[in-house]
Amino acid sequence: MSKIPYRFYLTEEQMPKQWYNLRADMKEQPDPMLNPATFKPITEEELYPIFCKELAHQEMDSTTQFIDIPEEILEMYRIYRPSPLIRAYNLEKELGTPAKIYYKFEGNNTSGSHKLNSAIAQAYYAKKQGLKGLTTETGAGQWGTALSEACAYFKIPLTVFMVKCSYNQKPYRKAVMQTFDANVVASPSDTTNVGRKILAENPETTGSLGCAISEAVEKATTTEGYRYVLGSVLNQVLLHQSIIGLESEKAMEILGEYPDIVIGCAGGGSNLGGLIAPFMRDKILGKNNTRFIAVEPASCPSLTRGKYAYDFCDTGRVTPMAKMYTLGCGFIPSANHAGGLRYHGMSPVLSKLYHDGYMEAVSYEQTKVFEAATLFARVETILPAPESSHAIRCAIDEALKCKETGEQKTILFGLTGTGYFDMAAYSSYHEKTMQDYIPTDEELQKAFDKLPIK
Amino acid sequence: MSKIPYRFYLTEEQMPKQWYNLRADMKEQPDPMLNPATFKPITEEELYPIFCKELAHQEMDSTTQFIDIPEEILEMYRIYRPSPLIRAYNLEKELGTPAKIYYKFEGNNTSGSHKLNSAIAQAYYAKKQGLKGLTTETGAGQWGTALSEACAYFKIPLTVFMVKCSYNQKPYRKAVMQTFDANVVASPSDTTNVGRKILAENPETTGSLGCAISEAVEKATTTEGYRYVLGSVLNQVLLHQSIIGLESEKAMEILGEYPDIVIGCAGGGSNLGGLIAPFMRDKILGKNNTRFIAVEPASCPSLTRGKYAYDFCDTGRVTPMAKMYTLGCGFIPSANHAGGLRYHGMSPVLSKLYHDGYMEAVSYEQTKVFEAATLFARVETILPAPESSHAIRCAIDEALKCKETGEQKTILFGLTGTGYFDMAAYSSYHEKTMQDYIPTDEELQKAFDKLPIK
Repeated sequence: MSKIPYRFYLTEEQMPKQWYNLRADMKEQPDPMLNPATFKPITEEELYPIFCKELAHQEMDSTTQFIDIPEEILEMYRIYRPSPLIRAYNLEKELGTPAKIYYKFEGNNTSGSHKLNSAIAQAYYAKKQGLKGLTTETGAGQWGTALSEACAYFKIPLTVFMVKCSYNQKPYRKAVMQTFDANVVASPSDTTNVGRKILAENPETTGSLGCAISEAVEKATTTEGYRYVLGSVLNQVLLHQSIIGLESEKAMEILGEYPDIVIGCAGGGSNLGGLIAPFMRDKILGKNNTRFIAVEPASCPSLTRGKYAYDFCDTGRVTPMAKMYTLGCGFIPSANHAGGLRYHGMSPVLSKLYHDGYMEAVSYEQTKVFEAATLFARVETILPAPESSHAIRCAIDEALKCKETGEQKTILFGLTGTGYFDMAAYSSYHEKTMQDYIPTDEELQKAFDKLPIK
Repeated sequence: MSKIPYRFYLTEEQMPKQWYNLRADMKEQPDPMLNPATFKPITEEELYPIFCKELAHQEMDSTTQFIDIPEEILEMYRIYRPSPLIRAYNLEKELGTPAKIYYKFEGNNTSGSHKLNSAIAQAYYAKKQGLKGLTTETGAGQWGTALSEACAYFKIPLTVFMVKCSYNQKPYRKAVMQTFDANVVASPSDTTNVGRKILAENPETTGSLGCAISEAVEKATTTEGYRYVLGSVLNQVLLHQSIIGLESEKAMEILGEYPDIVIGCAGGGSNLGGLIAPFMRDKILGKNNTRFIAVEPASCPSLTRGKYAYDFCDTGRVTPMAKMYTLGCGFIPSANHAGGLRYHGMSPVLSKLYHDGYMEAVSYEQTKVFEAATLFARVETILPAPESSHAIRCAIDEALKCKETGEQKTILFGLTGTGYFDMAAYSSYHEKTMQDYIPTDEELQKAFDKLPIK
């Protein structure tokens, strides 16, 4: 190929037909999830009341390397995939960097993000099992939108518990979910025991992802034929999201490229875990010396300032416990934090990789992130989601380091989605009313003190 | 090719390097624009105070068949183009139609629509001429967003007069334009003579595209080094938008397809004129028997209920006059009309083709349009703009006719953009508060009575 194109698309024939399960190649496995009643490793069967069977199986399966993507899911993938691998020529020029910057853009679907990749899979398996309905939570709204879309397609009723501050700040996100027939409830709500309890303790709370999870799990486990689905953190989600990394790997191979640095934003880890999967396998197998960087908000710094410990996946302490980097399941990010990436913990797979030194992590304050987002939008014609813009910020900084050293590194980052529903945050940035927030050590300690296992 | 893929992308090498000027192949030319002072055909030089020179030239050039796209514009096109040609397998299945439905999706850029194709060209030529700034108007906001994006890229100051009802209904659209450094003014405003006059006559007016054009033209012609740019209607815009049709033609050729029916929404005609261009050439040359259908809102029915007459392009009656299908430049669509497609006239090129029988036109009430939009979103994973959804409605109806007759027609329609900023309208549809509006004959006659030439 004479010159790398701006946008590169795989053909339908070149698209991956299997997901890749990184756990099968990890030298050490993440510690097992624990049953909160017994503190013993949870079994697949114990997950059946929460997840549908196939997903419970995928959650526990740490040995199968590649898993066939069912044809019904491939059908839906083909409607909006492959996503383009974009060479950021304009950004490179703007920065004057010798680095080659690539990004994998996952925003070309109604949900506006990569979340649809897992939503389709989860809705499909639920339908296949004949379930009557699903519940979930959503923070910034991307996951809720994606799942609404997937459930509308497979014709399964869905209730979405939407973190209250997002529910109020983003009425149009709610409207999109309603377009796809979802029942959207502001969380905490009075429709669940755990919601009522949280409201009683703190009537003014703007909610948290952990709290919305508690409500969704309670609703699923107390309603006949219902199950719960989650858009991040879980092993099964990283498995589905491996499509991002597999497509990236294939595209770069065709272009004769390989990343020296792979960068992704990290909230619960779904995008990052999917993007890095095939490249991390090469690293584990000693085939590359690639750096992997997780980028998180300074206001919710689970990897950079959290503890590697067992914790609940939800605020209400009803879910199984996972060993992960966590800020404590009671941690709620400051209300002035815009966008997603507000989960208290981090995918156990990514936590383990980070703990074992395979991955780095950095955090940024949001004004620095929106600065990068605005620059990126102006030169690359895509308005990035605040979440994705964390990765942009880091990619720009790494490219600027290359400018200093003169190194022509190949940088790959994940552009997970678009920011059309985040204009209030963009406005506050442009009007210079956006504030940064970094939790104090005392605040973090207060949440750490409540960890279930010392 | 064994099976047509869901999404087909041309490679960079296959992308068109020239625009196509349909006028060069038309058997009869549209009537010339008239100077409103002399009522004589306007000259290229007389356009220089309004448009930059190269664009004035393109506006008048009815003989050059293909025009090279400057490399600087191709550079920018490559960032977000080619746009995919999508086979609507899911929609076909949902409808149970034997028809093959294709759509060209132009929403994959921050402006969320095809408007960027011309915005880039217009900003580039202005920059090349060394202009100090540009003015324009925007209705639903797509054009203003696209031009803001293009002007930020080429670093030219921009003032956007935004139709007041959109300005109030769509604060986030405004915020996107501001992200790209545009100065956004609600129209009618007190910053121009024509705006002040309109406000004095009707202080409660929610504005119109024609009125915003008047203000933008006045501002451009009274500010040193400024020019005016327009996102639709003009010959130059149709020229730039021919990229849509040329890519579609090339992609269909590779796929072994040719459309029996080409459908596009029509406000001022920019998308439709660009989409049909190469296929219409074939029709003019007697090489096909393809049907071309312009789809417009019943609330602003310029082709289906307008007069073919000379009219001003703006409400303030300061622009040259064009022979076109028009509702009268004083016509303002009902405030309950959602989205764009609210211009009183129609591209002179398209008007001529319609008048000469090369093209058909239909109109739909907006609840029927949102019904189609919602169905489409659920099966095709793209949330369409209300404008684009007019074309969807018509494509669905044509596909259903095929279901009745059993004909396997090939339908191509333009999906001009996404509806992320139109959720208020979607909500009103879902909550069944959306109203339809069809102007009465008396209302139309009142506007016709004010046409400048009887």
